[in-house]
This record gives sequence, structure tokens and C-alpha cells, in this order.
Amino acid sequence: MPRYLLFLFLLFLATATAGQSRKRAREYGIKIGVLPTGKLNAITDVPGVTVGHATVISGDQIRTGVTAILPHGGNVFQEKVPAAVYVGNGFGKLAGTTQIQELGNLESPIILTNTLAVGTALNAVVDYTLQQPGNEAVQSVNAVVGETNDGTLNDIRGRHVTQAHVLEAIKQAKAGPVAEGNVGAGTGTVCFGFKGGIGTSSRQLPQSLGGYTVGVLVQTNFGGVLQIDGAPVGEELKQFSFSKQVLEKADGSCMMVVATDAPLDARNLERMAKRAMMGLAKTGGIASNGSGDYVIAFSANAAVRIPHASKEKTQTVTLLRNDEVSALFLATIEATEEAIINSLFKAETLQGKDKTVVPALPLEKTLEILKKHHVIQP
Amino acid sequence: MPRYLLFLFLLFLATATAGQSRKRAREYGIKIGVLPTGKLNAITDVPGVTVGHATVISGDQIRTGVTAILPHGGNVFQEKVPAAVYVGNGFGKLAGTTQIQELGNLESPIILTNTLAVGTALNAVVDYTLQQPGNEAVQSVNAVVGETNDGTLNDIRGRHVTQAHVLEAIKQAKAGPVAEGNVGAGTGTVCFGFKGGIGTSSRQLPQSLGGYTVGVLVQTNFGGVLQIDGAPVGEELKQFSFSKQVLEKADGSCMMVVATDAPLDARNLERMAKRAMMGLAKTGGIASNGSGDYVIAFSANAAVRIPHASKEKTQTVTLLRNDEVSALFLATIEATEEAIINSLFKAETLQGKDKTVVPALPLEKTLEILKKHHVIQP
Amino acid sequence: MPRYLLFLFLLFLATATAGQSRKRAREYGIKIGVLPTGKLNAITDVPGVTVGHATVISGDQIRTGVTAILPHGGNVFQEKVPAAVYVGNGFGKLAGTTQIQELGNLESPIILTNTLAVGTALNAVVDYTLQQPGNEAVQSVNAVVGETNDGTLNDIRGRHVTQAHVLEAIKQAKAGPVAEGNVGAGTGTVCFGFKGGIGTSSRQLPQSLGGYTVGVLVQTNFGGVLQIDGAPVGEELKQFSFSKQVLEKADGSCMMVVATDAPLDARNLERMAKRAMMGLAKTGGIASNGSGDYVIAFSANAAVRIPHASKEKTQTVTLLRNDEVSALFLATIEATEEAIINSLFKAETLQGKDKTVVPALPLEKTLEILKKHHVIQP
Amino acid sequence: MPRYLLFLFLLFLATATAGQSRKRAREYGIKIGVLPTGKLNAITDVPGVTVGHATVISGDQIRTGVTAILPHGGNVFQEKVPAAVYVGNGFGKLAGTTQIQELGNLESPIILTNTLAVGTALNAVVDYTLQQPGNEAVQSVNAVVGETNDGTLNDIRGRHVTQAHVLEAIKQAKAGPVAEGNVGAGTGTVCFGFKGGIGTSSRQLPQSLGGYTVGVLVQTNFGGVLQIDGAPVGEELKQFSFSKQVLEKADGSCMMVVATDAPLDARNLERMAKRAMMGLAKTGGIASNGSGDYVIAFSANAAVRIPHASKEKTQTVTLLRNDEVSALFLATIEATEEAIINSLFKAETLQGKDKTVVPALPLEKTLEILKKHHVIQP
Repeated sequence: MPRYLLFLFLLFLATATAGQSRKRAREYGIKIGVLPTGKLNAITDVPGVTVGHATVISGDQIRTGVTAILPHGGNVFQEKVPAAVYVGNGFGKLAGTTQIQELGNLESPIILTNTLAVGTALNAVVDYTLQQPGNEAVQSVNAVVGETNDGTLNDIRGRHVTQAHVLEAIKQAKAGPVAEGNVGAGTGTVCFGFKGGIGTSSRQLPQSLGGYTVGVLVQTNFGGVLQIDGAPVGEELKQFSFSKQVLEKADGSCMMVVATDAPLDARNLERMAKRAMMGLAKTGGIASNGSGDYVIAFSANAAVRIPHASKEKTQTVTLLRNDEVSALFLATIEATEEAIINSLFKAETLQGKDKTVVPALPLEKTLEILKKHHVIQP
Repeated sequence: MPRYLLFLFLLFLATATAGQSRKRAREYGIKIGVLPTGKLNAITDVPGVTVGHATVISGDQIRTGVTAILPHGGNVFQEKVPAAVYVGNGFGKLAGTTQIQELGNLESPIILTNTLAVGTALNAVVDYTLQQPGNEAVQSVNAVVGETNDGTLNDIRGRHVTQAHVLEAIKQAKAGPVAEGNVGAGTGTVCFGFKGGIGTSSRQLPQSLGGYTVGVLVQTNFGGVLQIDGAPVGEELKQFSFSKQVLEKADGSCMMVVATDAPLDARNLERMAKRAMMGLAKTGGIASNGSGDYVIAFSANAAVRIPHASKEKTQTVTLLRNDEVSALFLATIEATEEAIINSLFKAETLQGKDKTVVPALPLEKTLEILKKHHVIQP
Repeated sequence: MPRYLLFLFLLFLATATAGQSRKRAREYGIKIGVLPTGKLNAITDVPGVTVGHATVISGDQIRTGVTAILPHGGNVFQEKVPAAVYVGNGFGKLAGTTQIQELGNLESPIILTNTLAVGTALNAVVDYTLQQPGNEAVQSVNAVVGETNDGTLNDIRGRHVTQAHVLEAIKQAKAGPVAEGNVGAGTGTVCFGFKGGIGTSSRQLPQSLGGYTVGVLVQTNFGGVLQIDGAPVGEELKQFSFSKQVLEKADGSCMMVVATDAPLDARNLERMAKRAMMGLAKTGGIASNGSGDYVIAFSANAAVRIPHASKEKTQTVTLLRNDEVSALFLATIEATEEAIINSLFKAETLQGKDKTVVPALPLEKTLEILKKHHVIQP
Repeated sequence: MPRYLLFLFLLFLATATAGQSRKRAREYGIKIGVLPTGKLNAITDVPGVTVGHATVISGDQIRTGVTAILPHGGNVFQEKVPAAVYVGNGFGKLAGTTQIQELGNLESPIILTNTLAVGTALNAVVDYTLQQPGNEAVQSVNAVVGETNDGTLNDIRGRHVTQAHVLEAIKQAKAGPVAEGNVGAGTGTVCFGFKGGIGTSSRQLPQSLGGYTVGVLVQTNFGGVLQIDGAPVGEELKQFSFSKQVLEKADGSCMMVVATDAPLDARNLERMAKRAMMGLAKTGGIASNGSGDYVIAFSANAAVRIPHASKEKTQTVTLLRNDEVSALFLATIEATEEAIINSLFKAETLQGKDKTVVPALPLEKTLEILKKHHVIQP
């Protein structure tokens, strides 16, 4: 097929779906996993967690942005939260990892953006923290910035993300429903050959298992062989890595942020973080060589916050026993899987740099496949 | 349902399936993933790799055994192979990890057995190595022994695995088809609430992707929410962790051995090892708190073997570039997933310790579910 | 110098020092570091910690043994202690690492022995644990066994350590002064070309820094360029790795066990463990390629013990804040350095396998060097 | 002592030493270790390695800067070098670690600067790389930026390092002698309570051990109990952490860069990196809680460079065997120790932010102590 025909076909897809508003996976009847979701099915179901986006779209070439996740509404530097990082595949530029791993805590908002904007985002978070009331004496900040590479659709070499964008994302952070798809740090990303973006999901454990909430937010920009709730959508759409049709190598990245209100320390949070990669695996991701697959997990439980300074030499905390974490692991796997699928359902076809068009996941065909495989009622 | 009824039902299942020989997943038309299998669809498709079992069944109480995987037919101590270990969840007693991680190589057969037999197996591998011709001066051996806990069906506290069993498994090691199910180290294991055991599978990359083979062998003894090629078999059988019917916590373990003939060093082998956990994830495993999920990966490529002693201070090796490993990652994911499913298909209902019966995966119902979900042709 | 002359010289040294009882470093006025020692200057200064040895000397060829360190006097399986492992250089066979790292706790005595006795010691610890009252239902034990290679003086291939020796070491474990030098697991070891062995030391922080105790026990079997409290003893004795006189490569190993009564979790214990390698560095150790340098750290503080089973889903613990651990780091460095030096001071010249003689650190010359360098009063 | 008297005393020290040019440790007869240095006793003894500084001193308040280390004179992105990172203590903001660890290579200059300038330096390195001829298609750069906190002497909150400073340091990079002390990223640092800064040293192995060179460059900003070649200088100057006189907690950081021309892959480079922490330990550093102690090690051997793109799927490399690396470990320990001591010898008393004065290591007294302890000829 000549290239321009492919382009026209993609443009057709884009147009065809322009009118209809795309819904989240669950609204089509897709029910991933066995645990119930939280109220909003979003990372913001974890009390205190807020999310903000700055979407940077301009002219023909600029398709990028910033997403900020705040673990609580206070001064995160002064009231740190237990946290951990897990590196699924480290082809990426996530900044701030080693201090989280050493000290077991997070002292800044988590910023997601594009690969070449990490320096700018670091600077913005440092500015933000230095200027926050109460931080007048702060001389050291561990800013945490993750990224994926949106260079397919975005003029990434143009470095269009500014500190102002980052501060805007932080400022916009709020509780409630989270915008998904082509928004914030997901504006220009590509996932399984389709338009990726931001996705989120949550699980709430039954009281018998502790009643805790696990929320996940992802920035999807990776490849593999797409499965939706087990159904081989990538294969049936003939769009998957290493197939004859698709010569691409599945590269790209996935940033995953996991929040919970379960009272966990860094060690058990790291274990949860590892399970997010298992959720990614279930979507057909393969963590290819060129993929930056990272998970940042934190506990937003107010009782386990770590004061920056204290008159006390010790801190008394009530933590979940090892024996009780398995249900949280399952919740993390399920919420990550669904968050990734949500990013695909909500992302819309986008034209960007050099007139490149990345089509959205074709909903009609996809739902057909899901029906065939009894993922949704036929 | 009274307990004895359940028992009778399980016994019925056991009897009902006794006549029919259970086949491997692919023989029922299940085709996991997008890459072709090797000739035998077994770890032994990797040239030089051999597998041996010692099955220890005796009386009513003893259901255990040993499986040995040899990276090549020579003296492994004198001709070490590049190797890596990845710890998916470290609730387990795998011995030999730190030296593999430090030196990047494997110098002994890999032994799998039960949790309380690790010491005995270590002793046996040390004996084996000390007595191997050419090793007369050896004073230090890094024996690698993995385990899962077969205490549900086996009188594990009785410590019935002997050094002779371990040596027998090594001696029996051969190329060709690999026995699966209730055999060797898989004799007494339980997986997703059904009888688990040994499973194996392989993938062979097309020449355009290097033509390499990846073989996986697993000892399955873990829980979660079983999926077979994406289909929600655990849910539909009403047998899954954290469901109301099943109060078990999904604990247990999975040992995974990954072999390849691709010329890789320890760093890229560790990356492959991490992908095996992604294959486990796709079967619905959750790496619960009490699970010992370990992967040992090695390259059996003869050209990258590491001589124990050498007159040369350097070694010249031709290694695959980072850019070329992604297809191996996909192969590892697929072969691990299929190896686990094979262990369930091949394992038969078993009665063991204290008359406990663990039923095999019910084939008829399972195939029905797979048809419903279009995993196999309806 | 012909070989037999060297031998005669060494024998002379051995005889010459036979009469005099060798003392610990501090008794000669050597004062390592700036922090005060605990009462006994031993790991047993940490309340509850006990140590036992089984020394295995027989005939001309057998020079080996076992040392057991118990974190408390109760049932360690039922009342686990927070723990961590750090691998300085992983050329070694330490068993039990991954479960400590995953779960953050220790559930068995720590056993030190020779390289080829790890399997036997594992079996013994499993037996011990299974048979301990209260453990009737236990089916899984993470036994922790470290080793160094005493094959220079001991017929290590003969496998002379038995389970009985291991159980004897556990049984002998007691509080109070700890035997050092050629005892237990240190019976046949070699350090910096001299006779090594078991050594111990402790530090007690002033109340202003928390008042906590840090105790270290080492099994020394490694090489490098010996320094004693900074003085270049190895160089001046013309006995150091890579010198023209000494062609050996500094190989060998060091097992280090760090105990504290400070209330720490696994994360901060791992940080302490890393500091033990810094203490080793100060003695001139280089963690050569063939060295197995491992640190196991645990908190013996009774209030942070972790019950194996509990009706509660959570545990409330009072832990030291990150800010307060630096003095414990310094204490760990100092106590490790001094424990290693103590092992050299207390070990006596020993003849073993194939009439090999390893001389003790020559005290007279050493003290002279220390005087010259003002380490002790001239 | 009233505070102003202390200040006057420090000012006196500053003035007193102003006239005399401070020399490197070896010029005073201090001979650390047993291996010979390279020709310049600097990291630039490793062929191809260059170093550049941008020193940022302005007015009363600004005392900071940037140091760049380039692994070779070509396009480092297109010709990457094998590399590894080791985290001694991760209280720091080193950017670029996870990609080095995953891919085993370095693709940018290494930049050292102050804590709050990491974002700016990242941006500068990205700019530099994007604009380098041959990189027109580059969309992803793993910039490596380390830092220590110079906030005692520098108005760090003022963010005075600019991208121009970073590019200047890269541009200035050259072979030959390396400026040490209050220069580049060492301009405002404090070490053991004295003025720290940049230091460097090297070792060249004898031909019998391979003839390789190891070079180290450090940015010293940490505390502890200073020892110089074993002599207790900190104690005798009554200036050490946790002493009654000094209430500071030894916090601060040390960035260490290790270069070698030995043909090593990432695994053995990581092992070398770990040994740099052992060199730090020998100076009396304790890696306190608040310390960011990081090591970046790379091989500058031209034959092991890794092309960014290649028509070949494999790369043939000749690498040093594990058995041969121990002498490199010793070289790393020695060169790191001496580099740190050099930073103290070369740094001069400096007055900075809020009229804070940090005195240089008092040479006269120090040499006296070294004589007393026979480190140098009395």
C-alpha cells in the first residue's frame, strides 16, 4: 500500500471518530479483573491524591504536555510520603530515583512529561518547592520527573515544554475525575501503534481484605502485542510488534504511578510497584529494549507521613503486615492493566509533527473483537 | 457442600480423567502468542540443554521430587555459561544467587526441588561437581538450587528427598521431549488451586530477528486468577484467589528457568529473566506475599562459554547488541506463559498427604471456556 | 628463599608464640575510631544476642568449624527480627539472602561455616527449626548460612562439618565474652596472609546520640594490604597482595554480622550493612574478585520483632528516623574494623592440610610498627 | 568561644595561607597505597579522558560551578562507552542512573555541579548533544549529572549556574593536568569541616598486572573522621563528626568518577565503582544519612566503545576476565582515597554566603601530624 493511501486511511479513521466522544473501557462493559473499582475508577479515589495536566498543543508540530500527581494537598517537602521506585526497563530518564530508594520517601510532586523536558521540569519543581511557604530554608529538593518520548507526533527537539507549563500542571491538580487520553504528558504518545496517552483506574478492596484503595495513573507510549482483558486485539487488528506488517520494535515507554491509602513502608511499596509491571504485561507490553518502564508507588495514608524535621528521634507508625499485602498486589495489577486500556480508549486520533497521524484504537472493530472473545456481551 | 462430598467429587474427577492421557495446551489448539515454537516446544530446543527428573512418590504421604537442568553436556564448572537471576518475589530459598549476579555465570546444573530439600540438593551438587573428572582441585562450587513448597500434598517435614534423588535427576538429564506435569520437582505442586507441576515451552525467532531459540521450564506452585491465553478460566471455574469461594491467599511459588542460544552476557540475560515474570503475569499469577518467584536465565551458546581457568587474561566474545534483544524478550514472555499452562494441562489429579486431593485442571470445562472465548475454535 | 626455609621460619614463628596468650587489639592500646566500645567489646553487648562455636580440628588435615549467632533467646521463627543483607562482593554461597531482602526479616539463627558445608548447615538449621517447640506446623524455613573457604588449611573437599557440629554451635550459643581467633567458623581461615578467624567488637553511642549499641562479628578470610588503625602493617611486614613477594591475588572472603538494639527496619539495616564494608576497607581489604564479602544486619530490639502469625493485620512500631542513623553508621564502620583486627590478634599460627602452616600476625613486629606510627604509645 | 572570635580565627587562617600555593598530597611526600600513579596522577592519565571546569564566583554570595568529564574526544552519543553507576548512599539527585544501569553504557559527558542546578545542567547537556554534528536525528539523550550541595558557602537557592556555565565546562575540557580544589563543581564544597573541592589521582598497574590505568576525579563535600594515609588527622585537629566540638552530622556528599582503559563491560565496571566507596571509607568518610555518595565508572578503551547504530546485530569485544580485575579494584581504592586527599590539599580557605568562612585544611599542623605518624618522613 503506498504511503499516502495509508495516510488517507488514517485520516479517515480520525475523521470518522471525531464526532463520537470516546468512553472509558468499563463504559463499554469491559470488566478487567475480579476486584471492584473505586468510586471514580481513578487514582484520585485515593484520598488526598490530586492530578493536574498542562496540554501543550500549538501549530502543526507541537503535541506535548505535562501531568502532575500530588500525593497530598499540603507541603509535600515538609510532610513526605513513603515511596518506592521500580525500574521495569531502564531505558529512560526518570529523575529522582536514588533518593527515593535510599530514604524511602517522596518529597515533591511527581511530574510526567516528554523525554527532553526533564531538565525543565526539574527546575520547575525546584522553584515550586523553594517558593512554597514553609520552605524558606530548603536548600535541597529531590524532584521526581518521569518521561516518555513523544517524538513521533511532537517536535521534541524543539523543547517546547516550559517551566510555566509544569507549574500550571501542579496548580491545576485537583481531586475528582481525571482527564484521560490526549492530555497532559499523554498528549503526543503512541501505544501499541495507536494513539496512547494518560489513563487511570483504581481498585477498592473489600473490608475483609482491609478496605484499602489502590489507584494507578499511566502515561502510555509503548509497544507489544495488544490484549484487552485477554482478547488478542493487536493480532486481530494485524497491528503488533514483530509482525510482518509492523516493522517497529515495540519501543517506547510507560510511566506508572501507583497510589494507595494502605499504610505501607517503602519496602512493601516497592513490592507493589513491581506488580504494576505485571499489569502492563497483561496488556501485551513487552518492555522492549528501548522502553523506559518505571513505576513510582507511594502511600497517601496520612498517618504514615514523614515530617521533614522533628523534635523526636523516632516515629511510631502502624504498618500493614507482609501477610496482608497480596490483595494490594492483585489490585495494583488490575488497576494498571485497566489504566493502560483506558488510555487507549480515551485517546483520539491525532495529527502532529511532519503531518504524521497516529490513529486512535478503532473502537468499532475493537468492540467487535471483544464481543467475539466474550470479553463483553455479544 | 460438606467436605467429604467435595472429596468424592475430586476423586471422581481424578478417576474420570485417569483413562485419558492429558495433552499439552497446543495439542488442543491453544496458540499462545505470535511467535513460532521450537521443534519440541521445550527448553531442550536450545541446543545442548538437557533435563532430568527424579520423581519421589511413596506410600500415601510422599509426593515430591527433583528436576535438573544442565546448560550443556560437558563439565559446567570448567566451562561456565553466562547467566543471571531475577527475583520476582523473594519469599523462597533459591541458593546460589549472589555469585551468579556478581560473576555473571553459572557453574553447576540447576536443581529444582522442594523447600526443605535445598540443603540436601546443595550437598548433592557439590558432590557431583567435586567428583566430576577434571575437577580434582576444585574447592569451591556455587550450586544453584531452587524450590517450591509441595507441603500440601507431600509430607515435606519428613525430608524425603535424598542426595541420591538429586544425582539421579542429573544423571537422567537428556535432550528431546521433556516430561511435564506430576514429575520431578513438580510432583507435588499446586497451581491456581489445581494440580501444578513441571511445564516447558520454547520459541524460535524467525531468521530476520536472529533465528535464536528461547526455551523455558517452570515448576508451578502459585496462585492468582487463572487466565489461559487471555480467557478468564479461573473466574469461570469459580476458582481464584480472594474470591468468596476460595479463601486461600494465592501463596506458593514459581521457579522459572530460561535458556537461549542467543549470545548474551549476564546483563542482557537478566533483562530476559525479568520478562519471564511478565509471562507469569499473563497466566494470572500475582506474585503474592508468600510466593517465591525466581528466574534463572542462561545462554547455552557455546561461543560465549567462560572457561574456569585460562592462560589468557582476556576473552573475546561476540554478543548481541542491546538493540536486538526485544524479540528475545517477547519470546521469553510467550514461552513462560505457555510453559505454565502446559504444567496445568499435563498435571493429573493427585492424592497425597493426609488424603488431600488436588484436582487437575478440569479439561472438559476448560476447553469449553476456551471455546466460548474463541481461544480455540468453537 | 627455598620453600622449606620459609616453612621452618613459619614453624618457628608458630612455636615462638605458642607460650604467650594473644590478646585483643585494645589490650595492646590500639584504639580504633572515636566512639566508645560496649562493655565486652563484642557482638554480645547487644542485649539478647548470643554466639556459639563448634571447632572441628582432627588429625593433620581437618581445620574447620561452625559459628552460630542467635538474634535472641526465644523462638526466632515465631518472633522474627528485622534484617537486611548487603553483598560487598558476591563470590560466595551465602544462603537465605533473597527472602531476607524481600520480607525484611530473619527467622533463623545465622550460621557461618566453610564453603562446602553450606548444604549441611542448611539441613541442620531446618532440622533445628522444625523441631523447636511451637514450630510443629512449620513447612518453610529460611535458613541463613554464610561461609568462607578454609581450603588452605582444611581438607575442605573431605566435607568434615556435620549437622551435629552445626547443632552444637547453636546449642553452645551464649551471652558474655566471645571466643575469637581459631575457633568455630574461623578455625581454618587466612586473612592478609596471616592466620585469620573469628573477631568481634562493639560500639555504644553516647546518650546524646541515642545510646544504642552496635555489635559486629566477623569471619575473616580475605586479602589486601593490611592496615591496623591506619598504620601500613602489611607493607612494612612486606606481606601484601600484588607485591612482588606475595603473588596471591587477595582472594578469600569475609562474613560480617552486624547487630544493634536500635529500632530499625530493614531499609535502614541495609544501610548499616553497607557501612560494614567501609570498615573492612579501612583494614586494607579490597574485596577482590574471588572474595565473598557479605554483611547480615539485624535489629535485636525486642519491640520491633515481627510475629510469624498474628491476629492483627497491622503492626505498630517505633522506628528511628533517617536523620538519626548516621552515628550508627560510624559505629558499624568502627566495630567492623576492630572486629577484623581482633580476629588477627587472637588467631594463632596453625598447621593444617598437607602440612601447610599459616603464621599468626607477628605480634612483636606489629606492635613495633604500631609504635613507629604512633598508633600505640611508643 | 564567641562566634565572632571563631570567625576572626578562620579569617586569619585564610589570610595566613593566602600567599603560599598549596600543593598536592604527593608533593609533600604522602604516598597513598602500594601501586604507582600514572604520569599526571590524574583522571586524564586515562587516554582520551578530558576534564573542564567552569568556576562561578561572583560578589559575596556566589561560590559554585560546573565540572565536565568527557570519556573521549569524539561524539559520545554516537560512540557510547561501557559504564556503570554505584550508589554508596543515595541522598542525592544524580540524574541518568537507570539508563546506565539498564543498557550498560554512557552516552553523554558527565557533569558535576550543585544540587539545585541539576535541571539546568540536564538541559545544557541535552542542548549540547542535540547540536553536536551527527546528532541531527537524536530525540532521546541520557544526560548524566551529579551534584553535591554547596549551600554552606554558596547562595544555592539563587540558582546561579546557567546553561552557559555547563557548556563552558564542556568546551574547556582538555587532557593534561587537572585543576583541583576550589574550582568548577568544587568551588563551594566543604569536606570534613574544611574546604573541599575537586581532586584527582590515578594508578597505573605494572605490566604483569595488565598495565592498565585507573583514574579518579572527585567532588568532595562530605564529613566523618578525617584520616590521611591512615593518620588520625581529624581527631588530632579536634575536627570530626560526632565529637563534642563538632555538632555537625557529617552530612554532605561525594561524587566520584572512575575511568579506566581496561577493557571492561558494565558488570565489572560496577564492581570497580563499588571499590571507590572503599577508598572514600579510608579517608574517614562515613556516608552519613544525608550524603549523596555516587560513583560513575566507565571504560575509555576505544576497542569496547558501543556504536549508537550499527548494521551489525552483534558486537565482538575483547574483555578482561573476572580473574584479572582485582588489581583494578585496588587501583580504584587507592586513587579514590588520594583524589579525596588531593581535594583537601589543594582547596583554599574561602569566604562565601553570609560571610561564612570555611578554612582550608591547615597544612602546617597537618604535616606535623603526618610526621608524627610517620606518614611522611619526620
